Amino acid sequence: MRTAVLVEPLQFEFQDRPQPSPGPDDVLVAVRDVGICGSDVHYYEHGRIGDYIVENPLVLGHESAGEVVDVGDNVTELEPGDRVALEPGVPCRRCSHCKQGDYHLCEDVRFMATPPHDGAFTEYVSWPADFAYKLPENVSTTEGALCEPLSVGIHACHRGDVETGDTVLVTGAGPIGLLVMETARAAGATDIIVTDVVDEKLTFARERGADLVVNVAEDDLEATVDDYTDGVGVDVAVEASGAVPSIQSTLDVVCRGGTVVLVGLASEATVPFDVLEIIDNELDVLGSFRYKNTYPAAIDLLADDIVDVEGIIQFESSLEDIDDAFQRAMDPNVIKGMVTLDS
Amino acid sequence: MRTAVLVEPLQFEFQDRPQPSPGPDDVLVAVRDVGICGSDVHYYEHGRIGDYIVENPLVLGHESAGEVVDVGDNVTELEPGDRVALEPGVPCRRCSHCKQGDYHLCEDVRFMATPPHDGAFTEYVSWPADFAYKLPENVSTTEGALCEPLSVGIHACHRGDVETGDTVLVTGAGPIGLLVMETARAAGATDIIVTDVVDEKLTFARERGADLVVNVAEDDLEATVDDYTDGVGVDVAVEASGAVPSIQSTLDVVCRGGTVVLVGLASEATVPFDVLEIIDNELDVLGSFRYKNTYPAAIDLLADDIVDVEGIIQFESSLEDIDDAFQRAMDPNVIKGMVTLDS
Amino acid sequence: MRTAVLVEPLQFEFQDRPQPSPGPDDVLVAVRDVGICGSDVHYYEHGRIGDYIVENPLVLGHESAGEVVDVGDNVTELEPGDRVALEPGVPCRRCSHCKQGDYHLCEDVRFMATPPHDGAFTEYVSWPADFAYKLPENVSTTEGALCEPLSVGIHACHRGDVETGDTVLVTGAGPIGLLVMETARAAGATDIIVTDVVDEKLTFARERGADLVVNVAEDDLEATVDDYTDGVGVDVAVEASGAVPSIQSTLDVVCRGGTVVLVGLASEATVPFDVLEIIDNELDVLGSFRYKNTYPAAIDLLADDIVDVEGIIQFESSLEDIDDAFQRAMDPNVIKGMVTLDS
Amino acid sequence: MRTAVLVEPLQFEFQDRPQPSPGPDDVLVAVRDVGICGSDVHYYEHGRIGDYIVENPLVLGHESAGEVVDVGDNVTELEPGDRVALEPGVPCRRCSHCKQGDYHLCEDVRFMATPPHDGAFTEYVSWPADFAYKLPENVSTTEGALCEPLSVGIHACHRGDVETGDTVLVTGAGPIGLLVMETARAAGATDIIVTDVVDEKLTFARERGADLVVNVAEDDLEATVDDYTDGVGVDVAVEASGAVPSIQSTLDVVCRGGTVVLVGLASEATVPFDVLEIIDNELDVLGSFRYKNTYPAAIDLLADDIVDVEGIIQFESSLEDIDDAFQRAMDPNVIKGMVTLDS
Repeated sequence: MRTAVLVEPLQFEFQDRPQPSPGPDDVLVAVRDVGICGSDVHYYEHGRIGDYIVENPLVLGHESAGEVVDVGDNVTELEPGDRVALEPGVPCRRCSHCKQGDYHLCEDVRFMATPPHDGAFTEYVSWPADFAYKLPENVSTTEGALCEPLSVGIHACHRGDVETGDTVLVTGAGPIGLLVMETARAAGATDIIVTDVVDEKLTFARERGADLVVNVAEDDLEATVDDYTDGVGVDVAVEASGAVPSIQSTLDVVCRGGTVVLVGLASEATVPFDVLEIIDNELDVLGSFRYKNTYPAAIDLLADDIVDVEGIIQFESSLEDIDDAFQRAMDPNVIKGMVTLDS
Repeated sequence: MRTAVLVEPLQFEFQDRPQPSPGPDDVLVAVRDVGICGSDVHYYEHGRIGDYIVENPLVLGHESAGEVVDVGDNVTELEPGDRVALEPGVPCRRCSHCKQGDYHLCEDVRFMATPPHDGAFTEYVSWPADFAYKLPENVSTTEGALCEPLSVGIHACHRGDVETGDTVLVTGAGPIGLLVMETARAAGATDIIVTDVVDEKLTFARERGADLVVNVAEDDLEATVDDYTDGVGVDVAVEASGAVPSIQSTLDVVCRGGTVVLVGLASEATVPFDVLEIIDNELDVLGSFRYKNTYPAAIDLLADDIVDVEGIIQFESSLEDIDDAFQRAMDPNVIKGMVTLDS
Repeated sequence: MRTAVLVEPLQFEFQDRPQPSPGPDDVLVAVRDVGICGSDVHYYEHGRIGDYIVENPLVLGHESAGEVVDVGDNVTELEPGDRVALEPGVPCRRCSHCKQGDYHLCEDVRFMATPPHDGAFTEYVSWPADFAYKLPENVSTTEGALCEPLSVGIHACHRGDVETGDTVLVTGAGPIGLLVMETARAAGATDIIVTDVVDEKLTFARERGADLVVNVAEDDLEATVDDYTDGVGVDVAVEASGAVPSIQSTLDVVCRGGTVVLVGLASEATVPFDVLEIIDNELDVLGSFRYKNTYPAAIDLLADDIVDVEGIIQFESSLEDIDDAFQRAMDPNVIKGMVTLDS
Repeated sequence: MRTAVLVEPLQFEFQDRPQPSPGPDDVLVAVRDVGICGSDVHYYEHGRIGDYIVENPLVLGHESAGEVVDVGDNVTELEPGDRVALEPGVPCRRCSHCKQGDYHLCEDVRFMATPPHDGAFTEYVSWPADFAYKLPENVSTTEGALCEPLSVGIHACHRGDVETGDTVLVTGAGPIGLLVMETARAAGATDIIVTDVVDEKLTFARERGADLVVNVAEDDLEATVDDYTDGVGVDVAVEASGAVPSIQSTLDVVCRGGTVVLVGLASEATVPFDVLEIIDNELDVLGSFRYKNTYPAAIDLLADDIVDVEGIIQFESSLEDIDDAFQRAMDPNVIKGMVTLDS
């Protein structure tokens, strides 16, 4: 099967690899759609993300969906022809994190496109059936692939306990920020403020339903939030930019007793935090790592047209043109590209 | 000021009462709209609800909104001309429930239209400013009055911890059931099943967005839910009918680990519960009593057009015609009547 | 290996069965101690518990501990010579309950001594290594076997969210009730009331630290609790008797906003519940089924001498004398018997 | 009445002030014991704590207990002769924080010894009856005064959700750290590690029950915790030192999914936080500010001898000798001094 392999930074090589055979609890999936994530682009450009280093050729791509073509002997819930979204991280199922339902914190997780585990820019993937979620008829495999970033948004809103009537700040209007905005809305948030430093992204966020957008390169966020919330501050701030000033600003704009959820990977190793502010205002500052148990909800949101994931796709590409696709995805103004394989 | 007083069952008398003076922390509100609640009708018909007995003439009405006409010396957040929704229960502020934020459980709450406390079918009410919530321009006082039943729905969904992607059953398509349906949707529920025994109410629920309606006088609820949820059951069942068979059925249709929220006041003193089912499936069976801290969220939902409360009003009446209005409201097929006072 | 098999009610037969071979993720355990649970006795007497029917010969015993004698190839955390407590329910690891951390609700759990799965009244058991918990030096295998009922107590206190300073009622002073009492104390409860109808059990509860004991055959529980709590009621009631009057009484003695945890299997199919009381007082009525993720905490409590499980053992027996042991355990006044195998 | 007033840094002046009259909801309390808190000492030395500046003469002391000598007309739960602990912060009871039960976050709280509100180094205090908690016979007013720092510990453990079987790290063995240690134990923690840089304090912590103590001036905390927890890390770290290196170290020693509770006021404005660590390990970093609804539990813990507050008192003084007492309290090795007034 034809597979795009990152052999060194900025260089894909096509290899013909043997089609995998599904184990007894697995399904074999013909890949249809694979989203290009910022982390894929980062590996493509730099060959590493922090401590995760690409030392051997690696197949990228962890936002994927496709069609089941074969199933293992124990699999009863799926059958050939079913279209499925693949949750890219499969945990050990045995450690205390797994047994407590925090399987996303499993130290032995096998996560697509994270060295040394290969991802989905290939024709076939064999995957545990319980991490392959059947898509209903009105959800496309393109949408299915985007259950992955949507899951990041759902999980962040769970972490922040976004509730009916909340005012939520989302810093960063990239794909994660936009999907956090929509999942916060779905979870009951009635006022959502979105920040970025690029006006086009903010305009896009506005069109997709932000109640207020702030270009933090131009306007003072704290004053703007203060004005918008009558001095109270937002209930929850979800930091989706990774920019140090944004991270710091979240502490200043949440209300007393409010919550900051950190999602965006910081561009610096450490960020100065105002500890007195955290204590005096009794804030919750919460990391949000990937997601767990989110795919069913993600599919429900898509089936009900509550969230629009396809609207964030700005270009599509074939697997053959993956190099071009990654070159386009390196433009920081591009929100999301999608690689589609022929059926 | 002209006041409609229930002097004995089925008999209102108009009295001219002195206009109250607001205390230092109060606002004086000219009443504009008062919803007729099932409990008002029950007092009107029977002179009592369980242990709450109308022993002296009583002013009914606890779903109200109006216009501020005067404010006490300490009041800074409201001023004459502001339109406000009145939260009808004012707690003692000093007991352990109040200090823990469960002010709705305060034993010394003063609740409108619950003997011996008068309600809102009158021209003016003096009320603590912090239980009078300013309405934004695009929320009418009619909607403001219905923040009260809407709050019942919001609180029930909080109790049940309705989350993104949940499947929710609502038993009973009266005003509370319908508003629970909408608040569950607002809180992220993606599949909502509504039951009743009156087809017209179910049709109405369907038009307002129920995914599935079941006439439990005709169809088997357990089989229907089983089919709809692939044998899993619903995540949360909110019992809003008070009918004994409905109460019992909720235990059968929630999933393992699921939650039943009891809102509708049971028509019988006791209901047989299957305790083994509660234990084996590790269910949460939760009472939901009135509400707390819900008015800001209710107003946000109305301001954003997320919930449609006016759509459940089937007739309006003047204060003069309150007798007629209550006669109409006694029809079990009527969902909600509203008494409107001239401005 | 010598195995005691229940072939029909009231009749054990000793069979020589082949010693199992551990799979790659399993350990082979030489059984040392097996507690006799009320459910074992019930199967022994009646051949069934509700819908669980003994249709084929069954090995009873699910409270067990022993010594590792062999390990599978993948097992790194245990080695021969380690003494371990065996958690008797092994879930599928793949369903939504398992992935959410509620593995005790897994429909496909394999639970020792629950038909058709054999238990531990035998010489060797092969068991998944992650459900075999290493005992520290100062915890005996007898204590290890009793991690099982202790887990029931820990889980019930988790369900009830017992916190520092809580007043807790425990109905029923059998093994579960007594261990709930001690785990509630360990979780911070400062006032614990225990009920039963047998004075000897209440005396025993008093000696083990109950602040107040009530013989509900003689004294009025509601009045007693009212007096003890200045009319407030208890924060949490854990029902561990299964007796219908006890179940009903819990609703009357918890405070407004309080919690009832149902653990004891009811002796009747249904119990009349006062629904108005649940709603008016906004109670939480929660089923508690077995346990999850409790063994590490159970072992910690034993290692620190915070809970005394050996004190509830009233007799020990050899495997040879299992018939006698079950005859003695049928006496309702006996709290706990233990079967010990030679090392 | 004789009152010790801080007129400028390092200088108390005794003034004769009129005895206050209790309002209708207040009690008049003859002060018996007042603990000297680090914040009192800080005001004494520097005349300010951050933004809280002593601009006018101020009465210090907010850890107090005494005897009721008069009650207002509405007070029914207390009577002259009752001994009470005074909770020093009285909130507005009307803002959204108060109504949500987070009265400790009320912006209009009146907190003893926080400018401009006077504290308890005086003979009589008039105080709202619902913030005066009756002490049982076996709890002294000295213990009653220390309900205040004990409350800080209880609240921190609530924030961190310390549960049965948890391993807890407490950084800083001052009075708060020591009481956090004991409240964590009371809440079920089975392994508690305490750090400091002063060996005497660590020895004291060991004697009071710490399972492990670490002098972080000498030993590597991360390696020590790693070793103690088999590489897992602690479940909850409560930072009670305010030292920047300690604050930073907490992130390194909690387990994946673990919780850091920040209590100690940082000595620097900002502290560099490793954001990637917070995200990758999905940590909760939680501020803990004062306390709410803790006094009843604090008194219960004292009445049951579960926590030893008197053991942390290293000297007692009369009100006359308050200057001396504060001079002694300035020694960083002193844990707690107590000022006692004659009865």
